[in-house]
Amino acid sequence: MDGEGLIPEALVAAIEAVAATGRVAKFLYTVPNYHNPAGVTLSIDRRERVLDIAERHGLLIVEDDAYGLLGFGEEPRPALRSGRRDGVLYLSTFSKTFAPGFRVGWILAPRVVREKLVLASEAQILCPSMYAQAAVAIYLSTMPWLDQVSVFRRVYRERRDAMLDALATLMPPGTSWTTPAGGFYVWLTLPEGLDSKQMLAGAVAAQVAYVPGTGFFADGSGARHLRLAYCLPPPDQVREGVRRLSLVVHDAMAVAAPLGATV
Amino acid sequence: MDGEGLIPEALVAAIEAVAATGRVAKFLYTVPNYHNPAGVTLSIDRRERVLDIAERHGLLIVEDDAYGLLGFGEEPRPALRSGRRDGVLYLSTFSKTFAPGFRVGWILAPRVVREKLVLASEAQILCPSMYAQAAVAIYLSTMPWLDQVSVFRRVYRERRDAMLDALATLMPPGTSWTTPAGGFYVWLTLPEGLDSKQMLAGAVAAQVAYVPGTGFFADGSGARHLRLAYCLPPPDQVREGVRRLSLVVHDAMAVAAPLGATV
Repeated sequence: MDGEGLIPEALVAAIEAVAATGRVAKFLYTVPNYHNPAGVTLSIDRRERVLDIAERHGLLIVEDDAYGLLGFGEEPRPALRSGRRDGVLYLSTFSKTFAPGFRVGWILAPRVVREKLVLASEAQILCPSMYAQAAVAIYLSTMPWLDQVSVFRRVYRERRDAMLDALATLMPPGTSWTTPAGGFYVWLTLPEGLDSKQMLAGAVAAQVAYVPGTGFFADGSGARHLRLAYCLPPPDQVREGVRRLSLVVHDAMAVAAPLGATV
Repeated sequence: MDGEGLIPEALVAAIEAVAATGRVAKFLYTVPNYHNPAGVTLSIDRRERVLDIAERHGLLIVEDDAYGLLGFGEEPRPALRSGRRDGVLYLSTFSKTFAPGFRVGWILAPRVVREKLVLASEAQILCPSMYAQAAVAIYLSTMPWLDQVSVFRRVYRERRDAMLDALATLMPPGTSWTTPAGGFYVWLTLPEGLDSKQMLAGAVAAQVAYVPGTGFFADGSGARHLRLAYCLPPPDQVREGVRRLSLVVHDAMAVAAPLGATV
């Protein structure tokens, strides 16, 4: 993944690496818009290439579009599902555009998969809360929900701007981060030698929290990364959070630097 | 299972039958109160014996008590869980005493199992609807919910009485059924030679429905049984339903009888 999202060549390499072990990659899970945690969006060119690769290798795509309506200006890009109905499961949710507490989302799936999903859902939970579903349905049919989405887009954009400004002002050289065009998250890369998981206790002591990058990798890597969420706090708190985090990063660098120097 | 519920000797036989195949029975799932679908309640004497058998064989008990508060007069019997905390998972729900649409229930579980359940729940659904949980919590803390349970007990008792009276009046000889002391269900056994699954289409055509007994057996048996629910329709409709069902049973007997006679 880079600034344009999933790297098509890396997808091919991953499929071939699985095949080399005698197994078959069955599906690709991906968040094309405003990725959680990376904050990047798959470019239109790469969307086509990912679809082609998936079709060529018989790979089902699970397209998780939880944040798709929460863009900060640009036109929405075409969903992978819009390009290839049969090979894409499209997931979304009302958790980000209405309220998370209802736990209601939806799936557009090819028929053969849909039947299996219904069976799996029945076996696991019988059915989701009808009350929560009714609340969402009534909200959508009686309230100006697109206006509310517009409010969310403006609010989250202000918070993103506050975070990006504060990062640019306060973070030490060697730190880098993504510039999300929507959604909730900035993905930050620490200067070499720092470990976001080791740093977390100090951050929490300074009353600023994040998710260490290792939580998003299956192979134990990701220690130089961390996910920052700007969705909940207002801009002033976002700025204050980045200020505290920058102190924690500076402290960690001060501890790491002499060690590096002795090598 | 008979009128007193789970037969302890049958439980021992089942544990030994599994052991004879080289496997180990891991848990017993049981509904001690107002059983779904059988409508029977485990006697106090048998509760002790089931607990002893489970302890002796290291068998975890999953005690599903969805209907425990919906008894028709008698004092509630002690939960299996009350007799042996460590070996019993106790499940219940607000679906039968508040409203089914909230999909909120609870589990009392030994600590070691509880941690696994939390992980399994997080992996499957992240968390249940907070909104639905809040609705239930507010209902319980602000409304006279035990009075409402008393209303349900009276209402369901009237419907059960209507069903039992109608069955006694209308069902042909050779038919038998359980007498539930609570809950929602009567378990009916058809005269020999009848098959509740074959009979279902005719019943639905007569606008009366039930669940064929085969749905409650893992081994394909149960064809002579059917589950009748009296919880939803008022007494007059319950009586009318039994009247229609009795016609369907009489018809099925008329078809089956000559075949039987030619054997």
